[in-house]
Amino acid sequence: MRLITRLFALSLAMIATVSEAQTRETLLGFDDVSSETQRELEAEFDSHLSSSELDEWLRIMSREPHHVGSAAGSEVVEFVAGKFRSWGYDTEVVEYEVLFPSPRTRQLDLVAPHRFSASLTEDSLAEDSSTSRIDNLLPPYNAFSIDGDVEAELVFVNYGTPADYEILDRYGISVEGKIAISRYGGSWRGIKPKLAAEKGAIGTIIYSDPADDGYGAGDTYPDGPFKHESAVQRGSVMDMPTYPGDVLTPFVGATSEAQRLPREDAPTITKIPVLPISYRDALPLLEAMGGEVVPPQWRGGLPITYHLGPGPARVHMKLEFNWDMVTAYDVIATLEGSEYPDQWVIRGNHHDGWNHGAADPISGLVALMSEAQALGELAATGNGPKRTVVYAAWDSEEQGLIGSTEWVEQHATVLDERAVAYINTDGNSRGFVNIGGSHVLEKMANQVMNDVEDPQTGVSVAERRRARVEVSGNPQARAELKSRADLRISPLGSGSDYSPFLQHLGIASLNIGFGGEGRDGSYHTLYDTYEHYTKFRDPGMEYGVALAKVAGRATLRLANAPRLPFEFTALADNLSLYVEQIEELAEDMRTETVETNARIDSGVYALALDPTRSFAAPLHKEEVPFFNFAPLKNAMDALEQAAGAYAKITISGAAANEQQNKLLFTSERELTRDDGLPGRPWFTHHIYAPGFYTGYGVKTIPGVREAIEQRQYELAEDEIYVAAEVIEGMAARVRELAE
Amino acid sequence: MRLITRLFALSLAMIATVSEAQTRETLLGFDDVSSETQRELEAEFDSHLSSSELDEWLRIMSREPHHVGSAAGSEVVEFVAGKFRSWGYDTEVVEYEVLFPSPRTRQLDLVAPHRFSASLTEDSLAEDSSTSRIDNLLPPYNAFSIDGDVEAELVFVNYGTPADYEILDRYGISVEGKIAISRYGGSWRGIKPKLAAEKGAIGTIIYSDPADDGYGAGDTYPDGPFKHESAVQRGSVMDMPTYPGDVLTPFVGATSEAQRLPREDAPTITKIPVLPISYRDALPLLEAMGGEVVPPQWRGGLPITYHLGPGPARVHMKLEFNWDMVTAYDVIATLEGSEYPDQWVIRGNHHDGWNHGAADPISGLVALMSEAQALGELAATGNGPKRTVVYAAWDSEEQGLIGSTEWVEQHATVLDERAVAYINTDGNSRGFVNIGGSHVLEKMANQVMNDVEDPQTGVSVAERRRARVEVSGNPQARAELKSRADLRISPLGSGSDYSPFLQHLGIASLNIGFGGEGRDGSYHTLYDTYEHYTKFRDPGMEYGVALAKVAGRATLRLANAPRLPFEFTALADNLSLYVEQIEELAEDMRTETVETNARIDSGVYALALDPTRSFAAPLHKEEVPFFNFAPLKNAMDALEQAAGAYAKITISGAAANEQQNKLLFTSERELTRDDGLPGRPWFTHHIYAPGFYTGYGVKTIPGVREAIEQRQYELAEDEIYVAAEVIEGMAARVRELAE
Repeated sequence: MRLITRLFALSLAMIATVSEAQTRETLLGFDDVSSETQRELEAEFDSHLSSSELDEWLRIMSREPHHVGSAAGSEVVEFVAGKFRSWGYDTEVVEYEVLFPSPRTRQLDLVAPHRFSASLTEDSLAEDSSTSRIDNLLPPYNAFSIDGDVEAELVFVNYGTPADYEILDRYGISVEGKIAISRYGGSWRGIKPKLAAEKGAIGTIIYSDPADDGYGAGDTYPDGPFKHESAVQRGSVMDMPTYPGDVLTPFVGATSEAQRLPREDAPTITKIPVLPISYRDALPLLEAMGGEVVPPQWRGGLPITYHLGPGPARVHMKLEFNWDMVTAYDVIATLEGSEYPDQWVIRGNHHDGWNHGAADPISGLVALMSEAQALGELAATGNGPKRTVVYAAWDSEEQGLIGSTEWVEQHATVLDERAVAYINTDGNSRGFVNIGGSHVLEKMANQVMNDVEDPQTGVSVAERRRARVEVSGNPQARAELKSRADLRISPLGSGSDYSPFLQHLGIASLNIGFGGEGRDGSYHTLYDTYEHYTKFRDPGMEYGVALAKVAGRATLRLANAPRLPFEFTALADNLSLYVEQIEELAEDMRTETVETNARIDSGVYALALDPTRSFAAPLHKEEVPFFNFAPLKNAMDALEQAAGAYAKITISGAAANEQQNKLLFTSERELTRDDGLPGRPWFTHHIYAPGFYTGYGVKTIPGVREAIEQRQYELAEDEIYVAAEVIEGMAARVRELAE
Repeated sequence: MRLITRLFALSLAMIATVSEAQTRETLLGFDDVSSETQRELEAEFDSHLSSSELDEWLRIMSREPHHVGSAAGSEVVEFVAGKFRSWGYDTEVVEYEVLFPSPRTRQLDLVAPHRFSASLTEDSLAEDSSTSRIDNLLPPYNAFSIDGDVEAELVFVNYGTPADYEILDRYGISVEGKIAISRYGGSWRGIKPKLAAEKGAIGTIIYSDPADDGYGAGDTYPDGPFKHESAVQRGSVMDMPTYPGDVLTPFVGATSEAQRLPREDAPTITKIPVLPISYRDALPLLEAMGGEVVPPQWRGGLPITYHLGPGPARVHMKLEFNWDMVTAYDVIATLEGSEYPDQWVIRGNHHDGWNHGAADPISGLVALMSEAQALGELAATGNGPKRTVVYAAWDSEEQGLIGSTEWVEQHATVLDERAVAYINTDGNSRGFVNIGGSHVLEKMANQVMNDVEDPQTGVSVAERRRARVEVSGNPQARAELKSRADLRISPLGSGSDYSPFLQHLGIASLNIGFGGEGRDGSYHTLYDTYEHYTKFRDPGMEYGVALAKVAGRATLRLANAPRLPFEFTALADNLSLYVEQIEELAEDMRTETVETNARIDSGVYALALDPTRSFAAPLHKEEVPFFNFAPLKNAMDALEQAAGAYAKITISGAAANEQQNKLLFTSERELTRDDGLPGRPWFTHHIYAPGFYTGYGVKTIPGVREAIEQRQYELAEDEIYVAAEVIEGMAARVRELAE
């Protein structure tokens, strides 16, 4: 064996050793003895989990479409609440009155160069009986599209992202007065009508391209898991990056007596009508388009040449909605803590689905329920949690995190006082564990991942994830496996119910799921059924049980640790990475702008581009100044020092008193400011936010990062000071804890 | 303006200055005075070129299918020879008797899971009358496929390259006893049956995928230039990387009295039958396949999910060919040099097409003819070339460079003595100049590119090419624009008639064409017509004229320069790049092998890969040793020093005597060795060769590079010495010239 081989094999061996060592290591927040007790408790917890029970609950709850306001939805609420009660929980069903648009008129016709009427309907399939239980079905639509009756030529905008519009500009094509047709993907769906409206479009059509999500991805349902030709991805298009939750009651719970905005003033309803369609319906529209052929990266999987338009394809789209007030039901089930009843560990998953919702959300909900059942059984034998555990099954997540947001807004004061952490799950699948969240919980999350066995391979879920990185071909990620003891957890953007906890109130949060092997094209379609899920996503529900083990351990450790398992070196490490990224972003934009401007001025584009085609040089951009990053770096320095000092205490295994624990769990609040992010005050967290133009995708240190991205340079300078202050505040808190 | 902007703008300004300076600079091989005279001559040469004449000749010669052995082919030969004679050339039509397989039986049927018979026929189109002149049409086939009658299940092999078979291995799929279905692209077509046969397949089908070359690339014919659904790319599959030319007469001209191999011993005929088909015919075959879904990069543009097989699709393929001997006619037209009649500048383009052949090859041939006409007119007014210029119109290029190879083989001795250089063209198009060839001619090629105006923009074709690199987004190429005065010319692999000159005899060669803007899907199909060419490739034939200007200048400068415009610093510079690349290749393979082996041994693949699917870990590979590159580097050192010394003489503008000029033009012979490359003695050049497993794609320093790529480590060590010797030989020659 050559030296280099030996060194490499050695480093792999070291990883294995580290990971074995971690398996045995003292749990963060516990001492050696309580650590062992906790692990024994968790083993007992595991013994109460049953995959067949998960399967049974999944079957029951995904039998019918059960969206907010539906009869089947109420049945699910009763089923869940009944289970919680039977397991000894103090269970209440909390009600909110929320605005819920459902379709009254959906009409989409190609009117030129020839006529075609889109069916806008999904096929029921003989192979899946669930797809015939559709009495209560919400047909395909985008919730919080405005009403509209428009007719115009089509322009193809690819994914409809800011970068796509820059390309269209270079073709000299505007969507002004046109209807933008966009494919799903590339950004959260709500960004597509938002940006199209900003650019002057009068309507938006969103379709699922078969290259991304259909026969191009794999065999289609029912032969395989991917999108049936008639399938349509429903989904909300409310402007969640401005604020999620009921559109009429920002900042306050949507109780019956809440003050409401007039609907016409609600800023998160779209400005133009938007409708999702299948690729079967999209084909005749796209085929009828003319104009320049799309650039290579924009081509989809339909058997046609894609064109940019505008026209000659011209469509008439008419959308009318029932703007009803409906009741959303959150199930809130509490198990009071034996030692610290006023410290709440909150664990949630939504219960409403767009349709049958087997994968989304029931596959996650059944894991949560089995955790709650097991915790209840532990409590019944005297091993109840030391802190209060609150289980939540949220309603109306699909329309815009409504059930969770309203509850958080209503209980903001008490949550600010008492909420230790929020642990979220949503649709689950088979494969690799994925944990995102607050980096103060990264160390604990790693200890949990080291302690849970992967159902398929028998190694820990952490080890399996490492293996995936190891074979991934990403050299940077591989290098980090060797240089860093823990796996990074990813920062959270939006897309599930953690948003109000983390980003509105500054409650440390985790979002947990498995995936990467369960294949899927059922998302938000008629085909998200029990049959689909158990055939293609998690047959046997073993990953449902694994999810319960991971989320359950996180809950139990937060509930029982003598010293809360918060830790700050991982926060400092990840934050320093974000600061570096932002410096690089500014540097890259500066260089790119200067070089592109110089190329434009020199005339090389005119020489290089085909004079017979319309694709032209990019537009001149304002140059990017140098920013003063010193305040951020000084703040990072202070945080790193403080985190190092506090780490000594966590290593000692010393317990904390109630006040110290409160200082620990409220530390995440230091990362927020009451006046929120520029232009969106609801988002108070200055480290994690969904991107204003990405939607679900996270922007870290968003005030600074987005100001630079959007070339608002003075704002960027201001936001550097704000972010630095926030980090200095956290550093001060950690210093206090380290004393 | 910020400093960085100013610096960048300044560097662009410097480029412009350099390029203006080059326009005025003394021509390599001339002194200040003769340089001016030469430029005046070239201006007069230009005045004789006529785009309307090119258009007229194109129309005439692409009226009918005119492949080797056809009546229309003989008419083209007569037309070309007649023109040459009328322009005062000593013109002969040289005949070779060559083996030419044409189809007798072509049958392809899907026999399971249901029946379908492929039409194997291209549609005549009302919009293009040429496509109805098909009496003499060669139907779609691959020349030099062996006869065969096979039936087996299909396996999808993507592009059928070595890398693709490594992926199939990981799926546990073998083509042993199966029929491989491959798409065009990714390698030269002949590699597909060659490799499939090596892997045990009993037949190969090649189709054009619409993603690569059909509606996925752009609008299809006749609406646009891209491949019609019925179009089939014909083409030779003879094993040209072993030797090109008549399969029965390697190394010797295929005169009527030549010794011939028995056909069954001809090593360059395929081992298994192979047939090309359209995507219309491919669709039912691919749709009927099962097995694992292909990896994402393998997906094509048909509206189906692509599967790897094997089966259940099963096909029966029957191919029989007429193995006829036919006569190939090369037109050889000579204008004797006034001062050095025994120094020959050879300029060639083939005349045979697969069908009408408007683009391939007539668009290049008409440029050559207009050059010859202009040269004839210069000669008629007393301005004939100082060296002999030989114009050649080759036959049977399409079947495997047959006309040129036989002529070169027959005249090897005299060419070795007299051939100064060979300048090749083939199908032309609109856009950017592209010159490949011997790096001893790189400096001259750059001076030519600086002196010819681009028809669309009015700047030099060199400047337009620089502009394209400048906006390309390739930072390395951009950086080189600033650090290097000249554009690199690319090393030559194979695919046109330069191969026998350069790679068999070591005659310095150039291959010249324009492209990048003329769009195309007509290659080797029924749709390569006058109508297609003049609508989509070079309307107005302005790039035909530009090609004549570039190739004409190269010819005239080589013919008239007092000192032949050979130069060695560019050779040294490019060679040192190749040596660096090979060192990096070895290093990357070494690291990759060690790391992959370690990963295999550690078991991470088993953990990372989906246990429910068949995709497995790669196979263990033999480790890569460290090689002794010192001999190559010492040789490079010697060459760089000698090239620097000789550069002083070229700068002085001193003329050379006949003997010095002969030392110059035979210098390229130093790069060859009589015993050729390992396993393929016909290829004697040790710097440039087509890849044994890429076909057309070049491998530089091929003995060393391919030995390493193919993990033949002892051979690699030996080949380093051979390559070093060859470079040392060149260094010695250049030292002699510099004395």
